[in-house]
Amino acid sequence: MNDSEKEKGLVIVYTGDGKGKTTAALGLLYRASGYRMRSLMIQFMKGRMHSGEREAATRDSNGLVTIVPLGEGFTWETKDAARDRAVAQQAFEYARSEALSGKYDLVVLDEINIALRYNYIDVAQVLALLDERPFHQNIVLTGRNAPEALLERADLVTEMKMIKHPFEKGILARKGVDF
Amino acid sequence: MNDSEKEKGLVIVYTGDGKGKTTAALGLLYRASGYRMRSLMIQFMKGRMHSGEREAATRDSNGLVTIVPLGEGFTWETKDAARDRAVAQQAFEYARSEALSGKYDLVVLDEINIALRYNYIDVAQVLALLDERPFHQNIVLTGRNAPEALLERADLVTEMKMIKHPFEKGILARKGVDF
Repeated sequence: MNDSEKEKGLVIVYTGDGKGKTTAALGLLYRASGYRMRSLMIQFMKGRMHSGEREAATRDSNGLVTIVPLGEGFTWETKDAARDRAVAQQAFEYARSEALSGKYDLVVLDEINIALRYNYIDVAQVLALLDERPFHQNIVLTGRNAPEALLERADLVTEMKMIKHPFEKGILARKGVDF
Repeated sequence: MNDSEKEKGLVIVYTGDGKGKTTAALGLLYRASGYRMRSLMIQFMKGRMHSGEREAATRDSNGLVTIVPLGEGFTWETKDAARDRAVAQQAFEYARSEALSGKYDLVVLDEINIALRYNYIDVAQVLALLDERPFHQNIVLTGRNAPEALLERADLVTEMKMIKHPFEKGILARKGVDF
């Protein structure tokens, strides 16, 4: 089908303090891959630590799912905000050029809301990307404290609200569940 | 490693009126498959309609992810509650025997909370399964209106809260996003 027959892509925001934001975005990647749609997740907070999702993307997704960790080097408890902004900006520029490349039906900017919260990325930059992206592209933005302007622009917003968290009981992060 | 060295599995509940509950559970299946953990999702509401997640599970998961739709025949607007309870009970018995088989590291009972809400399945049956299941098995229960007794028993509860829903804007369910 040609572009004019494609449906307009959705802007989806998963925010809130509960667990499941990144995990829901992963579910979207997985579901999309079932229809041979191509998707990309840029991880703004995660470094190159081993993760189940990247293993699965590399091994089992027929090249349909790409997950790129670009959070290495961020500290979020920085003593050098200028440097951290530069790193976040570099990550955003990469995400932007990939989103605009036309290669992807679905793009996830994982934990970008945190970078917005710290003013490492400006909400105006994100809103501009939402306007510029391919017509049919679904785009997902995750992370707590999504800015108001992004919520207004979104088609779908879910707040993941923490009711009970296993860390409260002293249960540590689990391989295959948390990462 | 032997069973005594394995960590105790978590009981995870995704509830609330927002989108992302089933999708987050799918993300867990995908992440777990990256570590070659075996997982099973029983869909209590979905019938055999085409879905991206089942396509991906069949084609790309190396047999690690199994998704079984058992919701066919439920109407939830029934004129024959006895029949619908019988169908739900049959689905639960299947889920139970698979969960107890020892084959799975992760089991998702998708939308089971709806069946609990309609009293097609009793919460005591579910609590008994949580006690009986293999020690290391993670189990995820989704659907709005999770009963209080289940929330008390869970290790992790996230409420997916609807802030904005695309159906409000007249946007229909999307292939690759919603199913």
